[in-house]
Amino acid sequence: MTDLRRLEIIPVPGLPEVQPGDDLAGQVMDACTAPSDPPIGLLDHDVLVISQKVVSKAENKLVKVDPTDPQAHKPVVLEESVRVIRRRGDLIISQTKHGFVCASAGIDRSNVASDTAVLLPDDSDRSARRIRDAINGRLGVDVGIVVADTFGRPWRRGLTDVALGCAGIKPILDLRGTDDAVGRELQVTEVCIVDELAGAAELVRGKSNGIAVAIIRGVDPAWFGPGSVQDDIVRDPQEDLFR
Amino acid sequence: MTDLRRLEIIPVPGLPEVQPGDDLAGQVMDACTAPSDPPIGLLDHDVLVISQKVVSKAENKLVKVDPTDPQAHKPVVLEESVRVIRRRGDLIISQTKHGFVCASAGIDRSNVASDTAVLLPDDSDRSARRIRDAINGRLGVDVGIVVADTFGRPWRRGLTDVALGCAGIKPILDLRGTDDAVGRELQVTEVCIVDELAGAAELVRGKSNGIAVAIIRGVDPAWFGPGSVQDDIVRDPQEDLFR
Repeated sequence: MTDLRRLEIIPVPGLPEVQPGDDLAGQVMDACTAPSDPPIGLLDHDVLVISQKVVSKAENKLVKVDPTDPQAHKPVVLEESVRVIRRRGDLIISQTKHGFVCASAGIDRSNVASDTAVLLPDDSDRSARRIRDAINGRLGVDVGIVVADTFGRPWRRGLTDVALGCAGIKPILDLRGTDDAVGRELQVTEVCIVDELAGAAELVRGKSNGIAVAIIRGVDPAWFGPGSVQDDIVRDPQEDLFR
Repeated sequence: MTDLRRLEIIPVPGLPEVQPGDDLAGQVMDACTAPSDPPIGLLDHDVLVISQKVVSKAENKLVKVDPTDPQAHKPVVLEESVRVIRRRGDLIISQTKHGFVCASAGIDRSNVASDTAVLLPDDSDRSARRIRDAINGRLGVDVGIVVADTFGRPWRRGLTDVALGCAGIKPILDLRGTDDAVGRELQVTEVCIVDELAGAAELVRGKSNGIAVAIIRGVDPAWFGPGSVQDDIVRDPQEDLFR
């Protein structure tokens, strides 16, 4: 079976500076449907990749820190962690209370006022579900939502965007039991499509241009369905070889 | 600065079953420029993401194995490794002689005859450069090349595609010294765009449909330039916290 589906990665400008308590889903819909050339809109089976940063701001996951101290957020890093995995100098890599393994418990201080640090959402899958439900309720379109953040990784330099939460789109494309192009059963089988979607969106979202939302358009409708990053992607510490 | 560049991810069908000694660059060009609806073509600043598998086949990085023994390639895994990092049951995670940390030294037996195992290219950056030079020489277009493979990672389930080699496209987008949307210097700064491009391409290449090549079209021309996965992405074991 050869499916020659082209995908489009579309940056969505026009999101206002998000404040605690804002209706983020409404703001995202407004940004997607605002007049633009070419128009963006929202279609069935679009995947909306939304920066964790704006989700956290809308959910008021903010703490005040001393703006003159670059390490002022460190106590919060430890509060947000259940286990420190590695530590070197100022760098703390820990398992967060959400189950992610990342630097600084995902807390950061860019794209926010200098006296403020931004924490991860309490439950990014739930955040994604709420946005999806609001969009479906208001516009009647069936979209996927990915809440994305930028993580480092062992062994390879540079950072990439990964999914912290998702809704409507399956996190893993499970190809076990399917045959490869020469008819043998595939060995490499479980593709983490939500992380690939998050990374693809980063290519147009950038870090400095304030684009917090991107749409991946053209995704196979068969990829839509239930699942969550928490249940399907976050690896059980018992099965993990690296902590 | 707001750059509202849309990207397109285009699967390229029509690559023949690649054999050792084949002119892979020529085959890729033929596949991109073959009549199709809509046409594909090759444009300046297209990024071509090519499966490691076809690069290895063209370069004859194949070994014969007993087709009845699923573990017959294991001695080769150890030969291709300089250091075993973790081992559990049949799973070997090692540092390969190329410097990658991955399962089975990147060797696999899918999409190939049952008596054959496919090794990684000796130097995937060099493979990428050769393909880029051949395309530039024949068609006069300035493209980026990424040679991609599917790797697992710690802490998160599922696999994603990453870059083993690249040419023409910078591996890392270095944003250090640039300001964020509110004018503070960015903390998260080195984005591994070649891995995000590899993952994006995987979304249309799939694993079972035999699509070994995808084009990412619309990439910022400023992202083009020198660099290699070996020099810029593979982390020095001394600076790595996880081996």
